[in-house]
Amino acid sequence: MHQPARRDLSRGHRMNIGMIGLGRMGANMAQRLMQGGHQVVGFDLNAQARSELETKGAQSRDSLPALVTALAAPRVLWLMVPAGEITDSTLNALLPLLNAGDTVIDGGNSYYKDTLRRARQFAGKDIAYVDCGTSGGVWGLAEGYSMMVGGDEAVVERLRSIFETLAPGKDKGWSRVGPVGSGHYVKMVHNGIEYGMMQAYAEGFAILQQKKEFALDLHAIAELWRYGSVIRSWLLDLTADALQKNPQLSGIAPYVVDSGEGRWTVDEAIELNVPAPVITQSLIERLRSRDKDSFADKLLSAMRNEFGGHPIKKE
Amino acid sequence: MHQPARRDLSRGHRMNIGMIGLGRMGANMAQRLMQGGHQVVGFDLNAQARSELETKGAQSRDSLPALVTALAAPRVLWLMVPAGEITDSTLNALLPLLNAGDTVIDGGNSYYKDTLRRARQFAGKDIAYVDCGTSGGVWGLAEGYSMMVGGDEAVVERLRSIFETLAPGKDKGWSRVGPVGSGHYVKMVHNGIEYGMMQAYAEGFAILQQKKEFALDLHAIAELWRYGSVIRSWLLDLTADALQKNPQLSGIAPYVVDSGEGRWTVDEAIELNVPAPVITQSLIERLRSRDKDSFADKLLSAMRNEFGGHPIKKE
Amino acid sequence: MHQPARRDLSRGHRMNIGMIGLGRMGANMAQRLMQGGHQVVGFDLNAQARSELETKGAQSRDSLPALVTALAAPRVLWLMVPAGEITDSTLNALLPLLNAGDTVIDGGNSYYKDTLRRARQFAGKDIAYVDCGTSGGVWGLAEGYSMMVGGDEAVVERLRSIFETLAPGKDKGWSRVGPVGSGHYVKMVHNGIEYGMMQAYAEGFAILQQKKEFALDLHAIAELWRYGSVIRSWLLDLTADALQKNPQLSGIAPYVVDSGEGRWTVDEAIELNVPAPVITQSLIERLRSRDKDSFADKLLSAMRNEFGGHPIKKE
Amino acid sequence: MHQPARRDLSRGHRMNIGMIGLGRMGANMAQRLMQGGHQVVGFDLNAQARSELETKGAQSRDSLPALVTALAAPRVLWLMVPAGEITDSTLNALLPLLNAGDTVIDGGNSYYKDTLRRARQFAGKDIAYVDCGTSGGVWGLAEGYSMMVGGDEAVVERLRSIFETLAPGKDKGWSRVGPVGSGHYVKMVHNGIEYGMMQAYAEGFAILQQKKEFALDLHAIAELWRYGSVIRSWLLDLTADALQKNPQLSGIAPYVVDSGEGRWTVDEAIELNVPAPVITQSLIERLRSRDKDSFADKLLSAMRNEFGGHPIKKE
Repeated sequence: MHQPARRDLSRGHRMNIGMIGLGRMGANMAQRLMQGGHQVVGFDLNAQARSELETKGAQSRDSLPALVTALAAPRVLWLMVPAGEITDSTLNALLPLLNAGDTVIDGGNSYYKDTLRRARQFAGKDIAYVDCGTSGGVWGLAEGYSMMVGGDEAVVERLRSIFETLAPGKDKGWSRVGPVGSGHYVKMVHNGIEYGMMQAYAEGFAILQQKKEFALDLHAIAELWRYGSVIRSWLLDLTADALQKNPQLSGIAPYVVDSGEGRWTVDEAIELNVPAPVITQSLIERLRSRDKDSFADKLLSAMRNEFGGHPIKKE
Repeated sequence: MHQPARRDLSRGHRMNIGMIGLGRMGANMAQRLMQGGHQVVGFDLNAQARSELETKGAQSRDSLPALVTALAAPRVLWLMVPAGEITDSTLNALLPLLNAGDTVIDGGNSYYKDTLRRARQFAGKDIAYVDCGTSGGVWGLAEGYSMMVGGDEAVVERLRSIFETLAPGKDKGWSRVGPVGSGHYVKMVHNGIEYGMMQAYAEGFAILQQKKEFALDLHAIAELWRYGSVIRSWLLDLTADALQKNPQLSGIAPYVVDSGEGRWTVDEAIELNVPAPVITQSLIERLRSRDKDSFADKLLSAMRNEFGGHPIKKE
Repeated sequence: MHQPARRDLSRGHRMNIGMIGLGRMGANMAQRLMQGGHQVVGFDLNAQARSELETKGAQSRDSLPALVTALAAPRVLWLMVPAGEITDSTLNALLPLLNAGDTVIDGGNSYYKDTLRRARQFAGKDIAYVDCGTSGGVWGLAEGYSMMVGGDEAVVERLRSIFETLAPGKDKGWSRVGPVGSGHYVKMVHNGIEYGMMQAYAEGFAILQQKKEFALDLHAIAELWRYGSVIRSWLLDLTADALQKNPQLSGIAPYVVDSGEGRWTVDEAIELNVPAPVITQSLIERLRSRDKDSFADKLLSAMRNEFGGHPIKKE
Repeated sequence: MHQPARRDLSRGHRMNIGMIGLGRMGANMAQRLMQGGHQVVGFDLNAQARSELETKGAQSRDSLPALVTALAAPRVLWLMVPAGEITDSTLNALLPLLNAGDTVIDGGNSYYKDTLRRARQFAGKDIAYVDCGTSGGVWGLAEGYSMMVGGDEAVVERLRSIFETLAPGKDKGWSRVGPVGSGHYVKMVHNGIEYGMMQAYAEGFAILQQKKEFALDLHAIAELWRYGSVIRSWLLDLTADALQKNPQLSGIAPYVVDSGEGRWTVDEAIELNVPAPVITQSLIERLRSRDKDSFADKLLSAMRNEFGGHPIKKE
């Protein structure tokens, strides 16, 4: 599944887009937009990020006011900054600079409840607010981004040629999923599922790895499973790659980071009374991977000693 | 991922194969073998299964002795019967009919510890025993079967053209993964992973379904995710199909069957001291789906009443 | 553990206390306070609740202003109302009626973050705010209440004779655990542990109940375990009672309610990066007990049908 | 709950008992039996264990044949050796030495399926076989042992005075729970519940410990909860003891051993189709505590790097 046919990215209507945030994701998306014939003006506080974008044919500005000035009204601004406080401070700075009729797209991993709040704020000034949950990571530049879009139907329609360019196919891999907020919501659940799938693979390979008597070649097995098996997937393709590069996973710490979206999915499931034990447990396993001095485990050992006289392992 | 290019299934060496068990899996595999130019003689107690196979160009026999007689030595027999007692009774009937140099392949979902025991039994008569964990279900006839093969290297090599025909690609989707037993072992873990992945998707879609205020179209979301998203997979392709046919899953009971392999994976993980919480929980969720009158839940309700005077919901 | 020796509840200093909320918990606590020689003025909107309290020797008032007027300054008001909005509306009504030097104790199951917010509000008027997580349920009147108290040290010291009367022992079963908020925090975790313990017992008895061939008498086993076993506990005592009254738990629906505290414990664990899989799973099991038409299970069944042709059970 | 009143252990009928295995459990039980007026002849291969028992007033023998000879028929032999192979080898050595009418009691933590097999073996020689699941650990000598007894009703009745002496009360803390095998079965489930309860406490205290801003005193909280709270229990008493001795649990490794019974409970639940997620997860957490170099976690980290370019933490 790695290599979809290279395709012509130019889509009907060419647009002018202000890209706010030129990190890996923002810079790649800007580049793919330009490949599709759109004009991009980028903004980032980091001068190097700006100049790198310019080498690829875009303009850039070093301040939000300058960016806004560089775009003809009605403007389209795509926000690609880390979720949370930076998103809020950027949007707060942006709001007074924009006019009725402009459009802001938050392409980051924002919490959908934040999105709902922000959209109300922008609606007060008749500025359209669209949320775009974006998946695809570092592969998006070449393969296209999966985009779950929330917002007003007419607004999303106006932006169609942008999504068609960024997506893996003209009408594949992106869709308006509902009103504003729903894009980030669906992306949040996407990541919850991702946690569960990753954990399922990780456990399976760990069992294979521990079955010493069969001396299994994990890379070969991952490769085998990529064709015809029920569990073939893009994550399995990547797993095969990882195991090819480093069959024993040498030097990698057993330490797994989580971002907000797994947590939000767990919160949401509980709030909706939906049992989501596997997604939840996948998150807990990540916490567990970073808990190298578990108080709970120490207490269990102490309790066993208390009632049964079982010896305590010393640190 | 549904539609790999149709390919020429004929592979170097053409072989004679006795197919024991002409249910859906066995009949389909026999047919794919014939498409690859191999000769198949089938056996099943069911006359209709035999005559259906004959309409596709194979011979069939109505008893194991007749099947064995119909094959030239050294014989190759592929067993495709339900795991468990039927496999044992079939093998017990087969053993005295075979000679040194013959080969038996168990393509079913046998427990790898049973496979190890059976292989020792056949080795006593110098009959080669090969285990082939087979994945692909009803899609295997058209797309090829994923096969995890365990057995002696030289023996598997002799059978190469069989596997090359059955697999999705000549050298794709099948592999000798280790000594006898390892094929069923790897297939068992494959199914454990499958349980975890399925449960992750199921939980995610259940959250989306419950978020009434966004009125999400689950089929459209599944379709969207198939391209460019991190969670794209063959199981997602199938989920999209299922949601297209029946968007509300109307008339489907919330009742999930499990076969042995999830249980064996859980047992194995515990035996190896490998934590596999998500695979394990996925199995437990299937038990839970069938436990419509949970004694545990009743007792929890009774306990709440005892300590807090909380009302008990009556049946 | 049911029957602690009846003890003299009168403790040094006798106090005047306004009890807000005369439901089961508030009325029982008022009664125990009076047994200890304290004077109680009760308030509830429900006239019957007021008159029942009066029959036990307390005064009552039918409005918050009247209650406040009936108490000599500096006043002590104990709030025993359902957590959430009612607590907020009651406190909002109370705040303008009180003066610097008065004390409010929230004895309900409030979320500790709400408590922190409310305490800041009352601190602005120099009104002391104390949170008291209260356990013991319907047994508290006879056996005493377990109380986890948060608040300023000097303030809690002034209230000492109240806690000494309400507790199971003068200096047993209650304690200031830290600053304001910590009382509800510790109570929240108490309930999280309670969920886990209850679920552990429930699962164990469910296994015993299902082992038909031994025809086990669950009540007799619970009774046996109450003495000398590692798992003896008050919850087990109650379980034995429940199983004596209704050995088959006939007529009880497998439907388990959860209140907020399990959810908050799960949230908190995740926020603190503490893996709490068993407490979390215990909450999820309660959600599961109420999910009688699981979309997740239906989807799993549909997926099995898609890839393996496995039959779908119809509703 | 620590200190039941010291009681007179002598019970009606005084018996002669052969105690096989003079480790901590066997020696303590022998001593308690002697306190109750029974006569004990001990056997252990370890000479020091034998001489220690003799200082307490029992006889001992240095071989099984000598032990059997020292007892008058019909003999009663109590086996108190580690579960598994040692139990089998001891029983195999014992079988030819005994006669019809003798009785063997297995007081260890045997797997109930082994017990069923062994009982059949002894029944072939008309030797009664009784299984006694024993709880109480190091506290049993002083407080009495909780005993879950499986066996023929008439046989258990003959042994009544033994159980009455060993138990916490004449008719408290022990009972015949069913036919042979059921005693070990109930003890197995007892331990499963124990795992769940312990894990629930451990998680709760870990949350409290991590809530740095409240600077909670865990020992004080455990002590508080011992009176009047819903979660009071003997395990909580022990937890309070452990936290008093070592409030930070300094020097204790986060490493938790499991014995067979948790695993058997998990197996059994799955075999019976009873969902037991909390007991199961408690076992998995113990495996996890010992998995210091988790391959699963490494793979998760590698996968995150593959799809998102997220940095890998190095070992």
